[in-house]
Amino acid sequence: MFPFAAPVRDFRFVLEELLEHGSLALPGFEEASPDLVEAVLEEAARLSNEVWAPLNASGDAQGCQLKEGCVQLPDGFIEAYRAYVEGGWNGIGVSEALGGQGLPEVVASAVQEMLHGANMALGLCPMLTAGAIEALAHHGSDEQKALYLPRLVEGSWTGTMNLTEPQAGSDLSRVRTRAVPCSAESGRYRLFGQKIFITWGEHAAAENIIHLVLARTPDAPEGNRGISLFLVPKYLEPESLVGADGSLGERNDVVCASIEHKLGIHGSPTCTLSFGEHDGAIGYLVGEEGRGLNHMFTMMNEARHKVGVQGIGVAERACQHAFAYALERTQGRSPKARGAGDCTISDHLDVRRMLLSMRARTDALRALALYCAAQLDVARHAAGDAERRAAQARVEVLIPVVKAFSTDQAVEIASLGIQVHGGMGYIEETGAAQLLRDARIAPIYEGTNGIQALDLAGRKLQRDGGAALMSLIDDVEATAQALAASPELACLGESLAAGGADLRAALVLVLEQGADPEFGPDAVQAYATPFLALAGHVLCAWQMGRTALKARAALDAGSDDPFYTAKLQSADFALRHWLPVGRANRAVIEAGMASLAAFDAAVH
Amino acid sequence: MFPFAAPVRDFRFVLEELLEHGSLALPGFEEASPDLVEAVLEEAARLSNEVWAPLNASGDAQGCQLKEGCVQLPDGFIEAYRAYVEGGWNGIGVSEALGGQGLPEVVASAVQEMLHGANMALGLCPMLTAGAIEALAHHGSDEQKALYLPRLVEGSWTGTMNLTEPQAGSDLSRVRTRAVPCSAESGRYRLFGQKIFITWGEHAAAENIIHLVLARTPDAPEGNRGISLFLVPKYLEPESLVGADGSLGERNDVVCASIEHKLGIHGSPTCTLSFGEHDGAIGYLVGEEGRGLNHMFTMMNEARHKVGVQGIGVAERACQHAFAYALERTQGRSPKARGAGDCTISDHLDVRRMLLSMRARTDALRALALYCAAQLDVARHAAGDAERRAAQARVEVLIPVVKAFSTDQAVEIASLGIQVHGGMGYIEETGAAQLLRDARIAPIYEGTNGIQALDLAGRKLQRDGGAALMSLIDDVEATAQALAASPELACLGESLAAGGADLRAALVLVLEQGADPEFGPDAVQAYATPFLALAGHVLCAWQMGRTALKARAALDAGSDDPFYTAKLQSADFALRHWLPVGRANRAVIEAGMASLAAFDAAVH
Repeated sequence: MFPFAAPVRDFRFVLEELLEHGSLALPGFEEASPDLVEAVLEEAARLSNEVWAPLNASGDAQGCQLKEGCVQLPDGFIEAYRAYVEGGWNGIGVSEALGGQGLPEVVASAVQEMLHGANMALGLCPMLTAGAIEALAHHGSDEQKALYLPRLVEGSWTGTMNLTEPQAGSDLSRVRTRAVPCSAESGRYRLFGQKIFITWGEHAAAENIIHLVLARTPDAPEGNRGISLFLVPKYLEPESLVGADGSLGERNDVVCASIEHKLGIHGSPTCTLSFGEHDGAIGYLVGEEGRGLNHMFTMMNEARHKVGVQGIGVAERACQHAFAYALERTQGRSPKARGAGDCTISDHLDVRRMLLSMRARTDALRALALYCAAQLDVARHAAGDAERRAAQARVEVLIPVVKAFSTDQAVEIASLGIQVHGGMGYIEETGAAQLLRDARIAPIYEGTNGIQALDLAGRKLQRDGGAALMSLIDDVEATAQALAASPELACLGESLAAGGADLRAALVLVLEQGADPEFGPDAVQAYATPFLALAGHVLCAWQMGRTALKARAALDAGSDDPFYTAKLQSADFALRHWLPVGRANRAVIEAGMASLAAFDAAVH
Repeated sequence: MFPFAAPVRDFRFVLEELLEHGSLALPGFEEASPDLVEAVLEEAARLSNEVWAPLNASGDAQGCQLKEGCVQLPDGFIEAYRAYVEGGWNGIGVSEALGGQGLPEVVASAVQEMLHGANMALGLCPMLTAGAIEALAHHGSDEQKALYLPRLVEGSWTGTMNLTEPQAGSDLSRVRTRAVPCSAESGRYRLFGQKIFITWGEHAAAENIIHLVLARTPDAPEGNRGISLFLVPKYLEPESLVGADGSLGERNDVVCASIEHKLGIHGSPTCTLSFGEHDGAIGYLVGEEGRGLNHMFTMMNEARHKVGVQGIGVAERACQHAFAYALERTQGRSPKARGAGDCTISDHLDVRRMLLSMRARTDALRALALYCAAQLDVARHAAGDAERRAAQARVEVLIPVVKAFSTDQAVEIASLGIQVHGGMGYIEETGAAQLLRDARIAPIYEGTNGIQALDLAGRKLQRDGGAALMSLIDDVEATAQALAASPELACLGESLAAGGADLRAALVLVLEQGADPEFGPDAVQAYATPFLALAGHVLCAWQMGRTALKARAALDAGSDDPFYTAKLQSADFALRHWLPVGRANRAVIEAGMASLAAFDAAVH
């Protein structure tokens, strides 16, 4: 088990050099100076490296236990969560109006990546709380905001998302949990039903847990439009909602019936919650009746970005493990041309291929995820409407890519990390295997990666006729031209230009076939996954092209920092060894949908 | 947890139609009729489905325990292993001269795949015994063969391979275990040292365990040539070796010091064995002193084929799980063009892509592995020397591909299997996650997949100047032409021809750069992994091209068996949706080795 060191230098490179601290120039971030950002990154790294990371392996080995309805967290988790709350970390990305520190999303995302790299299971707790904050901030009543937001933003209370039921997963229209009004117009309901896969659904790290629950009101129509969003606290506020000071009242009628035995994230309790085993769990309508799914999706976009970032955190840790092992494990001899002496496995070019593949992909995913976070900052804070709208349009397209592509790649990177360790990688004590087990959930939750691909190739592209993605491809091509103008980087430019052309061609094909009134929906389904993979490769390659330009410029300006040489190698690998594999997805799309349309699983 | 059904129909298709039962026509297999083969497959399927498969999940959950030096296997494992021995399964592929049934390797391989699909952890026990049989058959003295082979072939004794030590993994020249002669010329030694990662190194399923151990004799030269192979029984034969009747004597000085806590294959005890904690473990030299590594590599080739087959068994089970779940899980609605009704997820084209990708790859890997087994039969049994040599040359090239490509793909297939299950896939009780955990070892052991790639791109290709692979590519092109001649299959032929051309071009490049006296070894290392992946994709696509031709012919001849339609879909997907991704490896190779040669892991 190697120690974790949050990659502060990498974050600074992306924030300062790739993104040129653009977020700090936006209205509302006047107090966030580059020095402050640097201090925040250093401080978050300390919490990650010294408090959260050391509990990652022990939390996995110990897991959670359910005893008489109470979840016992792994040793040290409560203290580590409290250290996070006391450090004020829970509110760093939340606006000052809601009681947060109001730092830019790029900074908050960097901090999230560190914390997930340190301890993904623990990182899930604040990730879910952030979703609850978002939902309440957008759709809660003033009273709800006043009562719940301060504590959620602080982190002394945590939040959960209650969507899934046994028969309702990707298809939430099947939700059956019932919400019965207590009295007309009171806004109070009694909820009855069972929710599964509730992350951090029960624990004692916080004083109270605020469950956001999808449920059906009586006589509501079938399907999506019958579903509303409710707030169900674990402990009820005393007496009445209005004017309450937030001190805790009695236990609500919601209990943790069981926790799951999962492949990974053992330190994160995944609960089955039972609502209304007695009189019904008291819940409060959030937003409009019948608009529960819409309200839930408000925060879904950002939650999806966070899951992508989480994948990158685990990928980073897998890189660090693999590099540390490869640099210390002596095995074999170097070739005659390089001395024929005993060597570490990092000297074998086949191992270097694995290491560089892990590093290049992680660098690329991080740059893209933070680019997306910077666009989120622009979308929220830019002075001009047009600028905000353009950024929001890019965010809409980028988020499914960041979520799905980062997490699919994280699984592959973690698996490669095991391979670098050889036999030791298969032994749990080494720690490499846990990273694969943990990473494997990320392509599944917050909307499976298949759902992300449909969101991109269906809703997002069809809505604006591909305009936002086309404008991103224009930027890809501009970067390719800038690379082509540099003698040392011309071959990277060639590769990137080819990728951009592939993505443009595939986009045209998907738009055309997706618009077919009869076969459109099937075409979108058929092409969605290879299309998202192609977009992910090309957009990541774009960021690595920009990385190469910045690193080259720094070296040409006289820097002797080996960091820039390393980034040039990483970019070369990403553009010339990794992108070609992704480009193959154009051919996959052009192969058509006939074999999928004709496919009958029952005869295979 | 879905039941397992060994894919007998698929085996029959490959053996009867793709391979046209060629092995049965070889000298020595006169008694093996098609009817007998069919009966063997049916009987093996019964053992797999009814006895071994039901213990897969419980064996994983329970795992092995070490108590006072004894390994306690999961419940039912001893009985399941005995049922296998009593059914005579251990000797089916062993020649009659050694006491086996002498069935062709293609049949034995099919049976192995079923058993590994049913229960990979249990399947490892006979897999290791087969290695010991092979080593003794080739290098043991007549006395050793007489004493040990009958029981090993029967399976009442099992065998192990003791290679790895903490400092000696892929690099066995670092082995330090010592073997001290008891007296001059006696052939008896006392062994001292520790071996790790010994699969089924200790257990009570067999009366005795025969350890084959690499160790160094006194005054032996450093490096590979100082290593010899020794046979160390758990229980010594009474008194003298010659004339012994095999009844058990006293316990040898070898103990299981610990067992590993692994990511998967929990039902397979992975032992640290301590030799000579007291007077030294009695061992007998096998073959020539100083030739231990060569003797070990005799059997390595076949063991590697078996690991590839094992990967395919797990992939098959992952397919079956995913198909069963997708056919029963109702979620979402079909598009308007297909009725807009409630549907199972197998109706969504994005899910179909996952299912067909899993099925097509598994079909392709199986066909290639069994083609390789058939070539093994020819190499051993054909009447003509030239025919035997040609087949052996193909086997040499195919085995690293079968081992590495099948196991890498098996990991991806098992991971896709989890994805098809959505959130349920992450819950251990579902069984999908175990398949990924189990599969993940196969790219590591019996020589990591990196070692396989080096074996292919280095030793195997450089030795014959690529002749054997060139002749395989000739066959690939012939199949492409046959496809091109069929109106319905012409586009498959085009795709296959392009793949063949890519592989030929990459082969020329690797041969040229690999021959460079200075940079050759690094070039081989740099290109090995993408080259093996390219070869795997093209050779698998070739087999699926042959599958398409056979299936098309059967349908054209009037068959209405949906099996053939399914195989056509599988072939279409393999050639037009899967092969393009593999073909990208040509571009990866052509990108050169500069970034890997310049790479310094310490600055990344």
